[in-house]
Amino acid sequence: MLSVKIDVHGHVTAPDSLYVYKAGLVSHRGAHGRGDAALTAEAADAALDAPNRSFGGISHRQHLDNAGVDYQLISPRPYQMMHSESPAKIVQWYAEETNKAIALSCQVESRFKGVAGLPQTMETSPATWMNELRRCVTEYGFVGAMINPDPYEGLQQPPALGDQFWYPVWEVLCELGVPALIHSAGCRPPARESYSLHFIQEETLAVTGLLQPSVFKDFPDLKVIVSHGGGAIPYQRGRFYPGAFRQGTTYRDILRNLYSDTCLYTQDSLELQIKAVGADHCLFGTEKPGTGSVKDPETGRWVDDIHLLIEDIEWLDDAERDQIFAGNAQQLFKL
Amino acid sequence: MLSVKIDVHGHVTAPDSLYVYKAGLVSHRGAHGRGDAALTAEAADAALDAPNRSFGGISHRQHLDNAGVDYQLISPRPYQMMHSESPAKIVQWYAEETNKAIALSCQVESRFKGVAGLPQTMETSPATWMNELRRCVTEYGFVGAMINPDPYEGLQQPPALGDQFWYPVWEVLCELGVPALIHSAGCRPPARESYSLHFIQEETLAVTGLLQPSVFKDFPDLKVIVSHGGGAIPYQRGRFYPGAFRQGTTYRDILRNLYSDTCLYTQDSLELQIKAVGADHCLFGTEKPGTGSVKDPETGRWVDDIHLLIEDIEWLDDAERDQIFAGNAQQLFKL
Amino acid sequence: MLSVKIDVHGHVTAPDSLYVYKAGLVSHRGAHGRGDAALTAEAADAALDAPNRSFGGISHRQHLDNAGVDYQLISPRPYQMMHSESPAKIVQWYAEETNKAIALSCQVESRFKGVAGLPQTMETSPATWMNELRRCVTEYGFVGAMINPDPYEGLQQPPALGDQFWYPVWEVLCELGVPALIHSAGCRPPARESYSLHFIQEETLAVTGLLQPSVFKDFPDLKVIVSHGGGAIPYQRGRFYPGAFRQGTTYRDILRNLYSDTCLYTQDSLELQIKAVGADHCLFGTEKPGTGSVKDPETGRWVDDIHLLIEDIEWLDDAERDQIFAGNAQQLFKL
Amino acid sequence: MLSVKIDVHGHVTAPDSLYVYKAGLVSHRGAHGRGDAALTAEAADAALDAPNRSFGGISHRQHLDNAGVDYQLISPRPYQMMHSESPAKIVQWYAEETNKAIALSCQVESRFKGVAGLPQTMETSPATWMNELRRCVTEYGFVGAMINPDPYEGLQQPPALGDQFWYPVWEVLCELGVPALIHSAGCRPPARESYSLHFIQEETLAVTGLLQPSVFKDFPDLKVIVSHGGGAIPYQRGRFYPGAFRQGTTYRDILRNLYSDTCLYTQDSLELQIKAVGADHCLFGTEKPGTGSVKDPETGRWVDDIHLLIEDIEWLDDAERDQIFAGNAQQLFKL
Amino acid sequence: MLSVKIDVHGHVTAPDSLYVYKAGLVSHRGAHGRGDAALTAEAADAALDAPNRSFGGISHRQHLDNAGVDYQLISPRPYQMMHSESPAKIVQWYAEETNKAIALSCQVESRFKGVAGLPQTMETSPATWMNELRRCVTEYGFVGAMINPDPYEGLQQPPALGDQFWYPVWEVLCELGVPALIHSAGCRPPARESYSLHFIQEETLAVTGLLQPSVFKDFPDLKVIVSHGGGAIPYQRGRFYPGAFRQGTTYRDILRNLYSDTCLYTQDSLELQIKAVGADHCLFGTEKPGTGSVKDPETGRWVDDIHLLIEDIEWLDDAERDQIFAGNAQQLFKL
Amino acid sequence: MLSVKIDVHGHVTAPDSLYVYKAGLVSHRGAHGRGDAALTAEAADAALDAPNRSFGGISHRQHLDNAGVDYQLISPRPYQMMHSESPAKIVQWYAEETNKAIALSCQVESRFKGVAGLPQTMETSPATWMNELRRCVTEYGFVGAMINPDPYEGLQQPPALGDQFWYPVWEVLCELGVPALIHSAGCRPPARESYSLHFIQEETLAVTGLLQPSVFKDFPDLKVIVSHGGGAIPYQRGRFYPGAFRQGTTYRDILRNLYSDTCLYTQDSLELQIKAVGADHCLFGTEKPGTGSVKDPETGRWVDDIHLLIEDIEWLDDAERDQIFAGNAQQLFKL
Repeated sequence: MLSVKIDVHGHVTAPDSLYVYKAGLVSHRGAHGRGDAALTAEAADAALDAPNRSFGGISHRQHLDNAGVDYQLISPRPYQMMHSESPAKIVQWYAEETNKAIALSCQVESRFKGVAGLPQTMETSPATWMNELRRCVTEYGFVGAMINPDPYEGLQQPPALGDQFWYPVWEVLCELGVPALIHSAGCRPPARESYSLHFIQEETLAVTGLLQPSVFKDFPDLKVIVSHGGGAIPYQRGRFYPGAFRQGTTYRDILRNLYSDTCLYTQDSLELQIKAVGADHCLFGTEKPGTGSVKDPETGRWVDDIHLLIEDIEWLDDAERDQIFAGNAQQLFKL
Repeated sequence: MLSVKIDVHGHVTAPDSLYVYKAGLVSHRGAHGRGDAALTAEAADAALDAPNRSFGGISHRQHLDNAGVDYQLISPRPYQMMHSESPAKIVQWYAEETNKAIALSCQVESRFKGVAGLPQTMETSPATWMNELRRCVTEYGFVGAMINPDPYEGLQQPPALGDQFWYPVWEVLCELGVPALIHSAGCRPPARESYSLHFIQEETLAVTGLLQPSVFKDFPDLKVIVSHGGGAIPYQRGRFYPGAFRQGTTYRDILRNLYSDTCLYTQDSLELQIKAVGADHCLFGTEKPGTGSVKDPETGRWVDDIHLLIEDIEWLDDAERDQIFAGNAQQLFKL
Repeated sequence: MLSVKIDVHGHVTAPDSLYVYKAGLVSHRGAHGRGDAALTAEAADAALDAPNRSFGGISHRQHLDNAGVDYQLISPRPYQMMHSESPAKIVQWYAEETNKAIALSCQVESRFKGVAGLPQTMETSPATWMNELRRCVTEYGFVGAMINPDPYEGLQQPPALGDQFWYPVWEVLCELGVPALIHSAGCRPPARESYSLHFIQEETLAVTGLLQPSVFKDFPDLKVIVSHGGGAIPYQRGRFYPGAFRQGTTYRDILRNLYSDTCLYTQDSLELQIKAVGADHCLFGTEKPGTGSVKDPETGRWVDDIHLLIEDIEWLDDAERDQIFAGNAQQLFKL
Repeated sequence: MLSVKIDVHGHVTAPDSLYVYKAGLVSHRGAHGRGDAALTAEAADAALDAPNRSFGGISHRQHLDNAGVDYQLISPRPYQMMHSESPAKIVQWYAEETNKAIALSCQVESRFKGVAGLPQTMETSPATWMNELRRCVTEYGFVGAMINPDPYEGLQQPPALGDQFWYPVWEVLCELGVPALIHSAGCRPPARESYSLHFIQEETLAVTGLLQPSVFKDFPDLKVIVSHGGGAIPYQRGRFYPGAFRQGTTYRDILRNLYSDTCLYTQDSLELQIKAVGADHCLFGTEKPGTGSVKDPETGRWVDDIHLLIEDIEWLDDAERDQIFAGNAQQLFKL
Repeated sequence: MLSVKIDVHGHVTAPDSLYVYKAGLVSHRGAHGRGDAALTAEAADAALDAPNRSFGGISHRQHLDNAGVDYQLISPRPYQMMHSESPAKIVQWYAEETNKAIALSCQVESRFKGVAGLPQTMETSPATWMNELRRCVTEYGFVGAMINPDPYEGLQQPPALGDQFWYPVWEVLCELGVPALIHSAGCRPPARESYSLHFIQEETLAVTGLLQPSVFKDFPDLKVIVSHGGGAIPYQRGRFYPGAFRQGTTYRDILRNLYSDTCLYTQDSLELQIKAVGADHCLFGTEKPGTGSVKDPETGRWVDDIHLLIEDIEWLDDAERDQIFAGNAQQLFKL
Repeated sequence: MLSVKIDVHGHVTAPDSLYVYKAGLVSHRGAHGRGDAALTAEAADAALDAPNRSFGGISHRQHLDNAGVDYQLISPRPYQMMHSESPAKIVQWYAEETNKAIALSCQVESRFKGVAGLPQTMETSPATWMNELRRCVTEYGFVGAMINPDPYEGLQQPPALGDQFWYPVWEVLCELGVPALIHSAGCRPPARESYSLHFIQEETLAVTGLLQPSVFKDFPDLKVIVSHGGGAIPYQRGRFYPGAFRQGTTYRDILRNLYSDTCLYTQDSLELQIKAVGADHCLFGTEKPGTGSVKDPETGRWVDDIHLLIEDIEWLDDAERDQIFAGNAQQLFKL
C-alpha cells in the first residue's frame, strides 16, 4: 500500500492572467498582437496554493498532498484549448502561453512533469502543430503530448485517427520518443454533448480509429494513452469480439496496442478496465483537481480519490498495483 | 436456473423480398409507386428456418431453441431503417412493409411479440411518425416502439432527446402505454463510426438527453429501455456523480429513470451494469441472431449467449435473475 | 422480315440476392466488409426463367423468345447503380457484383453479351472508374460500357460530357475498342423528375455535350450510342440548324458523330429518329424486359415490341432494316 | 392555303433603351431608384422597322409581312427576364418596363396582342407575381401570361408545376380567363445547358409536372400552352404509355389536358406533334424573329418559316390546318 | 475653458474575474452552469485604481483625473461582448455579468453612469434582448443602451438598421426614454478588418441604415448617438448631397436626425464633424482609457485627450463648447 | 488660378450599344457567342456630345468644358463591371468591349487618356486578369489600371489587399510601370450598402490592407491611388496613431505610401485630406460626369465642381495647388 504514485492525468492550475489573456484573444482575434499572459513563476506558484471553488474549496497542492501523489504529469486544461477558434494565430499563441504556464508550474513544483498542448487548428497542418511539441520537449523538457482527436470541437467531422491525415503526428511522437495522451478539448453547439461527455465519445472513436490495422503496423513504437479509461470500449468490448475472431485473433490482443488511464470514478469500472486490458496497460490518472473534486456526502471521500478505489481492489496483487500506480508510467514516459 | 426468458432485443429475420423491395425504393425513389414487398406468412415462416451465414450458419429458430428463449420481442433490423433517405414516402413505405414482416413473423412464430419501427424521416414531424405506431398497436397488437434518436443517421445534429422536439413521441407512447426501445439506425459518411458503434454513441447521448430534468417530470409514465446496456454510461457513471451531489441527489437515483437491456457480451460488463442500475432496471436482451452470432473458438459458446453470462453471475439471487430474464419485461410490456 | 435481331439495350435480370446485397450495402455502408451477393450460375439461370410482375408476368427468356431476339447486349439495371452513394467502396463493390451477375448470365444464356457498369462515384476519378471496364473486357469478354453522364444522380451539376473531366473515359474506351452506351442511373430528390425521365433529360444533355467541337476531333475512333433515341434531340433538332448553318455545316452532319438506339415506343418517333440521323446510325434497342413490358389493351402488343414497330415502317428497305436490327451493332461492337 | 395566321409565340422587339435600363438595374441593384427605360411609342415603332443582325438582317415587321402573319401574340424576350436576380424590386421593375414595351408595340402595330411577363422572383410569392398580370390585363388589355417554370434559372430546384406552390398562379389565370404560355427564362452556370436548351428541358418537366393528377382536376378551366412543341414529350411519349394503361386510361388522353405551340423547325417533328396530341391541341407559334431567323442555304427558306412546313404537311385537311393556324388560338385567347 | 465635461463614451474597467468567467463560458459553453464572475464592489473599486499596460501604464481613475472628466457614461468593453457566440445563454450570462460590473463601478465611483450592454445573439429575437435593458434601467438606474448593429460580428450580413427587424429595439428605447449608443462588438475571420476598423465600417452603415426615411418618421422620439464621429459619413457626406437635393432637402438636415460622439483623435476631424452636423449634435466622447491611451511622443499629449483638441478649436464659442462637453449629453441622457 | 487640370477619375461615357451588349451577356451567359458591342468611333464621339439625364442634362464634353479640364483619365463605369457574374468569359468579353469603348473615346477626344478595366472574375487567377492590362497598355496606350479590391462584389470575403493573392497584380503593374486606381465595382444583395457606399467601405479596407508592412517593402515602385479621398481613413486616421507610435513611426508617414484622389464634394473634407497626407499625395479627381453631376440649388454650382472647392482653399499655395491639379498626376502617370 506504499506504492509510488505517478498521476499521468493532471491539468495545469494557471494564474488568472492566462484566462484574461484568452478572453482577449477571442475578442480581438489577434488585432492587439501577440502580447502575452503576464505569466511569472511567482504567479504560477501562488495559483497552486490558492483555494478554488472548482476544486472543492482547497488548492491544487492540497489535493496532491491529500492523495499522496508523488508525481503528476500536467497538461493544459483541455476544454480551454479553443482549437476550433480562428484565426490560427490565436490558437497558436494560446497554446504557447499555456505551455509556458505548465513550464513555470513545473519549475515551482517538483512533483510536476509537463505534457504539451498543441495548436491543433485545422487552418494549419498536423506537421505544423508538432513544432510546438518539439519546442516544449527541447526547451522545457516536457515528457508527452496531449492530442485532441477532434480539432473541430464538434463543428464538423475530422478525419478518424486511423487516417493518413494524422501520420505526421505519430511520426514526430515516435521521433521524439514521447507518448500521446488522447484527450479532446471543447465541444461547440449544436452538438448534443457537453465537452465533458464529448471527451468520452471522442475517446471511444479514438480507440476504434487507432486500432485500424495500419497505425501500429506503421508506427510500432508509438505509445498512446487514452484518457478516462478508454471511453466506452472496455464496457462494450464484447461487441468487437466477433470481428476479431473472424480475423483469427482476439479483441483483447488488439486492444493491448493501446494504454488507458484510470480516470474513472467507480471501483467496478476500474475493475472492468483492468480485466479488459490488463494491469500492465492501465496508468494511474485522476484529472485531479478537476471534474471529480467533490466529496461524496455518504463516504466523505473525494470522488476523484481514485487511488483509494484502486487500493480497494482486493484481487490486484502488489506488482500489478505498482504497475498501475507507477511502473507503466515510468516505462512509457521514461521517468 | 429455470427462469422464463423474455428477450426484449430481437430483430426480425425477414424474407429476402423485403430487401429486394428496399433496394428498389432507394433506386426508383418512389417512381414505381408504393408497390409492396410481396410478403407472405409462408415466406416469413421459411425465413425463420433458413440457415444464414450472418447468423453463424444456423437459423433464427435454432438460435431461439438453443438459447431456450421463451419469448422474443422483435423489432426491425435497425441498420436497414434508412431514416435519412429521401423522399419521405419511401421511408414510410419501408417502415410499413417492415412492420408487416414483423406482424407475419409473429403470426407464424408464437414466441414473438412485435415492436414497431417508425418512419422517422426529418421531412415529416414526430407527430406524424407516431401514426404508424398507433396502427401497429391497434392492427397488429405490437407491444413497443423502437425509437431512433438520430434520424439524420450521422449527417447532421438532431435535437437532443431532452428537447421539446421529441415530446410528441413521448406523448403517444404514454397514451398507448407502450415502452420505447432506444436504438439508432444507420450512420452515413463522413461520420467516423460504423452504424454499430453509432448505436453505442447514440445510446450514450440518449441517456444524458433523457435525463434532463424535464422529461420524466413531464412524462412520469414514460418507459424507456436503452439498448446495449446504456452505451458508455454505466462504465462512466462516476463522471456524473459530482453534478448529482451538487443537486442533492445521487446519479444512481437519476439513472433509474431509465431501463437498459443486457445486450453486452462480457460477464464483467453485465455485472457492472446490474450494479450500476439494479437488477430491477435491466431487461434480458440479446440482439440474437445478429452481431454476436459467432462462436468463441476458445469457449465454444456463441458470443451472444448472454443468458449463459447472466446465469454465471454468482452473486445474483434467483429473484434478481428472474427480474432480469422476465419480470421486468412482463411489467413494462404488460406481457 | 427475317433479319437477325441484336438488341443493344437489355438489362440484366439478376437473382434477388444481388438486391439483398445492395440493401445491405446502403445500410451498413461497408461496415460488414466486402462480402458478396452469393451469385451462382444456377441462380442466374433461374432468374432468367422466373416470371416477373415487373415484366408483365413472364420471364426474361420468354420475352426474348417472343420477340425473336437473337442477341441481346445486357448491362446493369441502370436505376440500381447508386453512383451517388457513399462511401466509394460500396459503389465499387456493387458495380463489381453487378458485372459478375452479367457475366454469369452470359455464361448460362448464349444470346447475351455483356456491357459493363462502372463504379462512377465522384469520390474517385474517371480514370479510376475505367479499371473496372478493363477487368470486365479482359476477364469476362464484355463488349461495351454503360456510361452515366450524371454520377451525382441529380444532386448537383456534373461537368458536361464535352468537358476535359471525361477525357480519361473516352481514352480507355478507344484503347479497348469498345463503344459506350450513354445511360444515366438514379435521380434523387429534390429533383423534379423520376429516374426514368432523368434518362431522357440526361441524354439530351449528353448529345449537346458530346457534340462540342473538341470531343470527336480529339477522339475520332470513339463510338457512342445514346439510349432512348437520343433524348429530345431528333424531335428538337431544327433548333440547332441555325448554329450549324452559321458554321458552314449542317446539324445533320454534326449529329451523325453519334449513334442512338431505338428504345422509343411509338412508330412515328422511330420514323422521325431514322430520318433525322439515318438508318446507319440507329441500333435496335428495347430495354426489354423493363419499362415497356406492358401490353397495350387495344392492340394486344407489348409496348416494348419495338421490332414490330420497325417492321411496320413501310418506307424502310431491307438493307436499312438490317442495318438497324443487326449491321450497325455488329460493326460497332465487333460481333 | 389562305388561312388566317395567328402566331402565339412572338417576342417583343423593344427599343435599345430597355436593355440599357436593364444593364443599369443589374449594376446598381436598385440604388439609382426605379427610374424608367425611357420608352415611347415612337421608339417602339422604330424598333419594329429596324433591320437587325439577330433577325437575319431584316426587321420584325418585314418578318411578319414575309410570313403573312395576321396576328402575333408578343411576350417578353424570355432569356432577358432575369427572374433569378436580386433584389426582388429590380426583377419587378424590369418586368413592368418590359410589359410597357409590349403595350407600346401593340399600340403602334395592330397585328400585336400582348402576353405579360411576370416578376417571378423567388424572394416574393407566386400570389404577388400575379398582381402584374392583373395590371396588364386590366390596363393594357393583354390576353395571356408567360409563365417560367424555373424562376431560379438553373441555380436550384424549384417546386414542380404539379406542386401546391403554383396554385396561386393557376387561380389567377382562371379568374382572369387568360391562358398561360409555359416558357422558361435564363439558365445560369454551372448548369450544363444554354438557356435555349433549358427551354426544352423545362418544357419537358412542365408537361410531366402539370399532368400530375391533381392540377386539371382542381383547375378544370385552366388553359396551358407549352412552348416549342412540348419539349421532349411527343417524341418520348411511348415511355408513358404503360403507366397510363395501368391506370386504365391512355397517355394520349392525359396529354390532351395541355396545348402546345408549333415552334419546331422540321416538318417531321410537326407531323409527330400533331399526331401525338391532335390538330385541335396545336397552336401556330414561330418565335419569329428570333432563334430561327436564319436562312437555310440549301432551301433558301427562313428556318422559322414554320407556316411553310405546316402548309407542306399533305395529310392535314383544311379544317385541321385552320385550327392550328387560327381556330385554337381564337378559342383559347378569345380573339 | 471650465466647462463641465461629460464623456459619453467610456468603457468599464472590470476586475480580471469577469474575463476569467468569460474564458470559461466560451470553453464550457454552458456546461458548468450559470455560475458568476465573482464580482464585488471591492474588486470593482480596485480595478479602477490599478495601473494598466493597455491604458499607458496608469489607472482608469487617473485618466479621469488627468482629463478633468466630471461624468463618464460607461458601457461594456464592446469587443468583448461576443454576440456571435453560441449557445445564446452564454451571451446572455456574459451580458448580465458585464452589466453587473458596470453597476458596481457606478456604485464605487460617483462620476460614472451606466450604459447597458445587451445580449444581442441572433439565436434570440431583438424583443428578447431588450429585457436586459429594462432590467438595467429599473434595477441599476442605467441611462442608455449600447447597440451593436452587427450581432453576427462579421460572419454574415445582418439586416440593415433601417429594417423592420430592429423596430423592437427602437420601441423599447423610446418606451424607456433612453438613448442608444451605436457601437459594434467583435469582428471574426475571414473578415478583412480588425474589430476596431469594423467599428468604423459598421458606424458608416448604421448612419445610412438609420437615415432610411421610415425610422425617424416612425420613432420621432428616438435618440441615437453614433460612436467615433459617425464613421466615414461626415468626411464623405458630399457624396449624399445629390440624392438629398433630388428629394428637395439637404443632406445636412437629414444627418441631423442623428447625434455622434467626438471620439476622433485629430483636431481637423473634429472640426469637420462639428461643421458637418452642428455643435448641438456632437457629444463629448473619448473611449478613455482605451485605444487612444498612448502618448504622442512629439506633443507629450495622450492621443485620447480629446478635450484638449476641442479646447484648441478657435472658432468654437463657449456656448457651443458647452453643448459639446455637457449640454447635449445632459439633454439626451436627462442627467 | 490657371493651373493645368488633369482629372484622374473620369469614367467612360459609352454608346448605348455597350449596355445592350451587356444586357445580352447576362441573359444568354455566353450562348450567343462572343459577339461584340458594335462600337465605332462615330458612336463613341456622339455619346460624348449627347445630353444625359444622369449628367444633369448636359453632355460629357460640356462638363469638361465647363470645368476647364485639360486632361481626363477615363476608366470604365465601375458599377457596370460585373466582376461577380458567371461564367468567366462574359466578364472577360465585357471588360474587353469596355476597354475598346475607352480606346475609341480617346481616339475621338484628345483630352482623354485610358485607364483599363480588368476581367477580375474569381473563376480565374489574378495573373490571368493582367493579360488584359498588358493588351491595353500595348495596343491602346493606356496609362493605368482600375483595380477592384472586391471581385466578389459583396457576396463573400475576398483576400485583403495585403495578401499574397494580389501579388501578381502588383507585379504586372510594376513591370508595366503604370499606377493602379483602387475602385470597387458592384455590390450585391444581401449586402447592406449600395455600390456607391461600397466604394467607400472598400477603399477604407484597401488602405488598411495595402499598408500591411510587406506590400510596399516587396513592391517599392508600386504606385496606388485610392479613389474618393481614401474612404474613411483621413477622417479616422487618429485611430491608427497609437499603433504607429508603438512601432516608432507616425501614421502620417505610413499613409504616405499611398496616393488618393480628391473625389470628395465638400471643401472641409478636401482640406482635411490635404492636411492628412500632404498636397504631394493628392490627385485631382472628380468622377465627372457622374454621381455629383447635380446642381446645388443654393450655390448654383455643380456638386462635382471640385476644382472650385480646391481653388477656394485659401491656405494652399500655388505650388501645392499645381501639384494637386497636375504635377502629381504627371509624375505618376508619366504624362
